[in-house]
Amino acid sequence: MMNITLHGTNYIGCKTSKKGIDTFHAINPKTGEKSELEYHTATEIEVDTSCKLASKAFNDFRKINDEKRAKFLDKISEEILNLNEKLLQVADWETGLGISRLTNERERTRNQILLFADVIRNGQYKEISTDYQDPQNKLERMLIPIGPVAVFEVSNFPFAFGVCGGDTVSALAAGCPVVVKGHPSHPQTSELFAIAMKKAVEKVGFPKGIFSLLHGNTNVPGMNLVGHPDIKAVGFTGSVRAGRSLFNIAAARSSPIPVYAEMGSVNPVFITQSAINARSDQMAEQFAESIALSAGQFCTKPGIFFFPSSEESVCFLKKIAELMKKKKIQSLLNKNIYDSLMKGTSELTSIDGVELIAGGKIGDKPISLQNTMVKTDISTYCKEDRLKKEYFGPLALFVECDSQQQYLEIVDGFHGELTGTIHMEKEDYNGVKILFDRLSEKVGRIIINGVPTGVKVSHAMNHGGPYPATTSVSHTSVGTTAIRRFLRPICYQNVPEDFLYDFSK
Amino acid sequence: MMNITLHGTNYIGCKTSKKGIDTFHAINPKTGEKSELEYHTATEIEVDTSCKLASKAFNDFRKINDEKRAKFLDKISEEILNLNEKLLQVADWETGLGISRLTNERERTRNQILLFADVIRNGQYKEISTDYQDPQNKLERMLIPIGPVAVFEVSNFPFAFGVCGGDTVSALAAGCPVVVKGHPSHPQTSELFAIAMKKAVEKVGFPKGIFSLLHGNTNVPGMNLVGHPDIKAVGFTGSVRAGRSLFNIAAARSSPIPVYAEMGSVNPVFITQSAINARSDQMAEQFAESIALSAGQFCTKPGIFFFPSSEESVCFLKKIAELMKKKKIQSLLNKNIYDSLMKGTSELTSIDGVELIAGGKIGDKPISLQNTMVKTDISTYCKEDRLKKEYFGPLALFVECDSQQQYLEIVDGFHGELTGTIHMEKEDYNGVKILFDRLSEKVGRIIINGVPTGVKVSHAMNHGGPYPATTSVSHTSVGTTAIRRFLRPICYQNVPEDFLYDFSK
Repeated sequence: MMNITLHGTNYIGCKTSKKGIDTFHAINPKTGEKSELEYHTATEIEVDTSCKLASKAFNDFRKINDEKRAKFLDKISEEILNLNEKLLQVADWETGLGISRLTNERERTRNQILLFADVIRNGQYKEISTDYQDPQNKLERMLIPIGPVAVFEVSNFPFAFGVCGGDTVSALAAGCPVVVKGHPSHPQTSELFAIAMKKAVEKVGFPKGIFSLLHGNTNVPGMNLVGHPDIKAVGFTGSVRAGRSLFNIAAARSSPIPVYAEMGSVNPVFITQSAINARSDQMAEQFAESIALSAGQFCTKPGIFFFPSSEESVCFLKKIAELMKKKKIQSLLNKNIYDSLMKGTSELTSIDGVELIAGGKIGDKPISLQNTMVKTDISTYCKEDRLKKEYFGPLALFVECDSQQQYLEIVDGFHGELTGTIHMEKEDYNGVKILFDRLSEKVGRIIINGVPTGVKVSHAMNHGGPYPATTSVSHTSVGTTAIRRFLRPICYQNVPEDFLYDFSK
Repeated sequence: MMNITLHGTNYIGCKTSKKGIDTFHAINPKTGEKSELEYHTATEIEVDTSCKLASKAFNDFRKINDEKRAKFLDKISEEILNLNEKLLQVADWETGLGISRLTNERERTRNQILLFADVIRNGQYKEISTDYQDPQNKLERMLIPIGPVAVFEVSNFPFAFGVCGGDTVSALAAGCPVVVKGHPSHPQTSELFAIAMKKAVEKVGFPKGIFSLLHGNTNVPGMNLVGHPDIKAVGFTGSVRAGRSLFNIAAARSSPIPVYAEMGSVNPVFITQSAINARSDQMAEQFAESIALSAGQFCTKPGIFFFPSSEESVCFLKKIAELMKKKKIQSLLNKNIYDSLMKGTSELTSIDGVELIAGGKIGDKPISLQNTMVKTDISTYCKEDRLKKEYFGPLALFVECDSQQQYLEIVDGFHGELTGTIHMEKEDYNGVKILFDRLSEKVGRIIINGVPTGVKVSHAMNHGGPYPATTSVSHTSVGTTAIRRFLRPICYQNVPEDFLYDFSK
């Protein structure tokens, strides 16, 4: 087993750096304990240096051929494994997500790296298209990398959307250098990944400027990063407030750049009476599991369930409530999430017409909430905006509707959602078709008789949706087509072969 | 021959409407004559109605299958032909572009409509991708239309980027209703196309809300259009000032939308000494033709030429100057273009170190400029920002460089360009490779030994580039992939076949 030493530093072009005076510590969410290691918030100069190094490195990196880049990705995956148990232990200490979940997430993260290696080996991602009709003006169109990318780590997927996560890897696969803004919830985990990345870069001999990690527990380094002229695109996952503010900075630049922000979603679920009649036990299990999984800290957690008023639905809700009560309670990822969830929960339960049917109290773990269900009726839902927003954590709202006919009106009131789910039986087909049709206009993914959590990293996945689910409905942040965000077309007209295929050397 | 009557009206959901009090007239650029017909600037209510009708129509339009939409495109092309000589005569009266150029442009416009019909018949544009590994969670990803699109007509391509031009047709092909803001330079031409579109819509029995044409000679209707909540994307071609202001409006919306603005470009050309030695006559012909074509009113007009200082280059410039003087002088499209070009020309020629070598005076046609060449040296170019901007019209700047080595530095100073061109010989290959490499980072299309004008509508074309050439480097406004701008991915998870393939009925 290797001995891996953490330094509490930023990694600027793969080199350690801690010039900042402002420092912060990792905090164990389960114990409130502070880590000994002090992390230094990146200074404006460190941000600037990272971006400039990225821009300089881009000149060489973009010319490195697909196979070499694929091998580099393989190497990253290998170096992540070389972080061994230390990665799991440190991440568990910082996030409280548990060794089992983190082991799975490490596997998912490594698989997604290998999948992108496959994507670039396959080569189709370049969308090469030729038109040789006019021999004097042969046209060759292909996608090329967009330039240095700023990536923001998230707290709830410290691996899969971490320093070596989906955004970073799809950018590197595209041939774009990456400057990562680490999440202050797990700086040690971030540093471990930076160490893995540094080793991979060194082993393949790539320009070191292709990777930087910047720490910070304020939004200043991130804002400077998005405003930096050398940054050409932004990958972000987080709240609507934070995502929109980065979008605004990018749009106000003298040269605006795309911000691929994956933000909030209530992930509505519509349930028909026939579905309740046919399989209320099975659905109750599925829903309770999906709401409480990882303390509900998923952007795809089903947040609002719509069901028809009936005797059977009363029993159905009781079943879910019972199951929710039995589910394990977990500490939340950090104090900010906890504070905002507790505030939200007390606000929600104080609304006239909203009934608490399970949980609602501080959990038996530190900074935790019991698995919580609140119920309301359709008229309260319609008039109360606080019932339409996302509550990040193990909490779901159940809305009793007079009839399934109301579902259409509800859908028309949505803006944009990452997912929409319908539970139904065969006999519902005709009625549900219209609902399906309208709902698909509001979401990035539509699920029948399932749950929205568990986003498979696949060619056929889409993790996006109309605003405010994302700032760019045209793209996905999960799945192989995520690479498209960091590519742009170019047309070569009458260019000698020598020039074009230089890149494969 | 049909009798086609113009009404001076907007077309709101294919229906004539003129509620506005503000009116304007078409003006013949060659004679200054005003048309009798009065056009009514669209009111805020007319803009709102168009967008609402588009949004309503979208619910049905997006479910119409590809073959029916392809037939609709075929019909539009047919109805354009049915406008017969009237279209050419009216457009020539309004634009002065000449019957021959307009006849060609009509052909190009019809071909591009038929090409998009092919694209949707082929079906690959939907990028259907499936993952059936887990039978309980079958995934099917595809691209679907984004929603109603606002399209801004341009003055310099009254057909190809007009009411039935590339932006409109790629949006309709995608399944998106279109609200066109007509260009005030040619309102009668716009209305003729609206009549063709109305007939096509009626003949195929599609919802009438899928098409509206709004007139206006102020920027108010366009601003209202881009700010309208029912509009989901914008296609624009024009100046950086106008494009950026629409981009800003779109970015400031409560739900931001993408703006695909194709804006300014100087389309730099780099010439090696060997190229001048080998084929200065041929290049002189090519360049003079490309600069003066349609009075230089192309976004791809080569605006700045860089050449090495030498005896041969003195002769070379003389040749171009002679040819330019012989080329036909044409009236510009409108008084605004004329005024801004005349102001620019006098500003340009008043700069110390800038020498007028051909033209520079008012042309022999109304609102025209002689085909104009100005020359400067590299040090003047470097220090003077006014030498780096686009002058729309038959004017080009020639910059004498001390050596070809300076070309790299020049490229580094560029922001974004639609095109970049290099003229060279085989012996230049090694030296030019670096230039090619750096230049390709700044442009959407790179041309070797050719001219940037003459943008082929092809699968392999790209008409885009880094800002300020466009607001979205990831996309093209010419070529079949232009349809991507108006599509967005969705993932269907475990959705019954009955639901998914309903669209093909």
